[in-house]
Amino acid sequence: MPVNLSPPQSEQLLPVAGVTIGVASAGIKQPGRRDVTVMQLAPGSRVAGVFTQNRFCAAPVAVARRHLQKAAPRMLVINTGNANAGTGEAGMQAAKMVCEALAGLAGCAEREVLPFSTGVIMEPLRADKIIAALPAALADCRADNWFAAAHAIMTTDIVAKALSRQVQIGGKTVTITGIAKGSGMIHPNMATMLGYVATDAAVSQAALEAMVKHVADHSFNCITVDGDTSTNDSFMLIASGQAANAEIVNTASADYAALAAAVTEVATRLAQAIVRDGEGATKFMTIRVEGGSSREECRQIGYAIAHSPLVKTAFFASDPNLGRILAAIGYAGVDDLDVNTLRLYLDDVLVAENGGRAASYREADGQRIMKQAEISVRVVLNRGEAAATLWTCDFSYDYVKINAEYRS
Amino acid sequence: MPVNLSPPQSEQLLPVAGVTIGVASAGIKQPGRRDVTVMQLAPGSRVAGVFTQNRFCAAPVAVARRHLQKAAPRMLVINTGNANAGTGEAGMQAAKMVCEALAGLAGCAEREVLPFSTGVIMEPLRADKIIAALPAALADCRADNWFAAAHAIMTTDIVAKALSRQVQIGGKTVTITGIAKGSGMIHPNMATMLGYVATDAAVSQAALEAMVKHVADHSFNCITVDGDTSTNDSFMLIASGQAANAEIVNTASADYAALAAAVTEVATRLAQAIVRDGEGATKFMTIRVEGGSSREECRQIGYAIAHSPLVKTAFFASDPNLGRILAAIGYAGVDDLDVNTLRLYLDDVLVAENGGRAASYREADGQRIMKQAEISVRVVLNRGEAAATLWTCDFSYDYVKINAEYRS
Repeated sequence: MPVNLSPPQSEQLLPVAGVTIGVASAGIKQPGRRDVTVMQLAPGSRVAGVFTQNRFCAAPVAVARRHLQKAAPRMLVINTGNANAGTGEAGMQAAKMVCEALAGLAGCAEREVLPFSTGVIMEPLRADKIIAALPAALADCRADNWFAAAHAIMTTDIVAKALSRQVQIGGKTVTITGIAKGSGMIHPNMATMLGYVATDAAVSQAALEAMVKHVADHSFNCITVDGDTSTNDSFMLIASGQAANAEIVNTASADYAALAAAVTEVATRLAQAIVRDGEGATKFMTIRVEGGSSREECRQIGYAIAHSPLVKTAFFASDPNLGRILAAIGYAGVDDLDVNTLRLYLDDVLVAENGGRAASYREADGQRIMKQAEISVRVVLNRGEAAATLWTCDFSYDYVKINAEYRS
Repeated sequence: MPVNLSPPQSEQLLPVAGVTIGVASAGIKQPGRRDVTVMQLAPGSRVAGVFTQNRFCAAPVAVARRHLQKAAPRMLVINTGNANAGTGEAGMQAAKMVCEALAGLAGCAEREVLPFSTGVIMEPLRADKIIAALPAALADCRADNWFAAAHAIMTTDIVAKALSRQVQIGGKTVTITGIAKGSGMIHPNMATMLGYVATDAAVSQAALEAMVKHVADHSFNCITVDGDTSTNDSFMLIASGQAANAEIVNTASADYAALAAAVTEVATRLAQAIVRDGEGATKFMTIRVEGGSSREECRQIGYAIAHSPLVKTAFFASDPNLGRILAAIGYAGVDDLDVNTLRLYLDDVLVAENGGRAASYREADGQRIMKQAEISVRVVLNRGEAAATLWTCDFSYDYVKINAEYRS
């Protein structure tokens, strides 16, 4: 069951001026399930995105990336049930057919449509089914439909992920609403599973592109469930420009900083929600590595801990078998790491120093913390000023069960 | 249960002239279990080894590495039940005390003793218990005791790993006998868990050192169970020089090649036995990546497949959800990989080509192969001449169970 993750409430999700959303059922995998979402953006909206670095990137990722370079998007279309990845040239054609059909219905150009897919890999996508559902999705479009969209993009997710924030920018109230999906195959690399955050703030294209990278690197790019980087990861940041604030152009300005902080908060909570809803998760772990000589080496050590099946099963068992964390630090690949100067903490308890178990450490303290649903692992390297924080979950019987049975 | 792995038969393990072995019970973790092994080498024996690259390497690894540089070893001492890793200065003292005590009893120098430990990390090692058991282990020493040693070095292993081979070198019969242990925390990096292979062949020290690296790189360094690199990995190759063959000095000679091939075969079977006995394993997978531009990139792609929890759970479920293999190939980190030119095979069945599922692929074929206990995954990159082969196992409920319960 998800770890301390409450489902979003429909009334807490604020509309974003300039953005309307509709959902419909195309019967891609399960008959009757709402599996197609369209997002309409008002003229003048700007979009910036980051995508998976997987070389087997999905056809919709390739198409969305190309369209984003050519034009300001007016429509986004998202399907679940099929990833349209590992589908070769036929998959490219299917993604383009969906864009073309939606452009025709909505009266825009094909290059103004961004397609997204998530689901099983290496199965042909039935574009005809999606196309048949587009009129219903368009007819459903309205501003207060984020709640439905958060559900329509789910796959193995148990809980929908969505939230809103408001922030004052230049005396104007700016709204930010975001949704995301993801539960397994989670180890975003420069992007995430599917995440969409929209704001009505006015932001220049260049500033928006800087912001989406910063936000991704401090939210979706800081999580892992199983270390598998998806073929379909995409994170889109939309700015409709309807909040009447003075357009944010300068990335060194206070307005930029205020908006970036609020968007980062929304994206971080969505990213953490993906981990809390990680397949089979029973624990939520925050892994903080500090005192490093670079953020990169802190992330490298953090991910070695977060990916270790031995560490993850020890957390599942609430067993303070913490030597496994030392082993993971040791094989993280930081070749000149001096293990005698680092310190390992579990919450506030010092576990290891001077290359071994701390004299003050008591098994009962480790046991007490390991039983918690939320646990912090802190590694202090004592070799520099850099730091990084990651979030991950444990590894349970249910992860195996879910992934052994996913397709069937 | 181990996959197609028969226990060794005592009578099939051949003594190696110049090597005697004794085991005893020190009560390190379980009272009564035989957990201490000593190996005595005749004067003139040569030893070469490779050790873990984990920065948190165990105290015995640090001591053995140093002793090996100083002198030709006369004694090896191995304990299970405690890894003596993450134990700081006290752990170094404990390892040295064991060496010193054994040297005193056996009449050799402390630097002529190599210590090895395996078991729980970050628990203090009770050197006194091991020292108290050394006289009994020495009294037990005999040439035909490999079978007992193969059992005494086990931890979570279900089946002991040991075998012998004989080969003709320069008209003389040369014997090779090896033992190994390991089941979890298996992703050797330049070494393995614990592996000991002895031969009575006469080999120069330089040739033996070349051979141990070659053998490790083609056996123990080609396996993974869970991607966790141990703090204690050690692989020792012993040559007692008593077979009366002309000493092998030239690494380009036919004698060197014949011996290296035989030792590699023994080490490869031991390494494969570790995978077959991998924690919770139900399937044995051979992953072959060929047509690469370097062996390194072939290994990188092979390990991405072998480490993916999604791939491993699909094999456990006998579910041909083979898009997960494409995803793993895609995120392996080979940045210029063209996914449209590679081919993926399951045994002899072509699964994917041209960036997607092969037109000839039938789900029934995938299903049939996935049900087998032994499965070959073959990736043909079509960009060069290099190749690499790895061995791994699937990921089952029992892996989680074993590692959630290991310490308790």
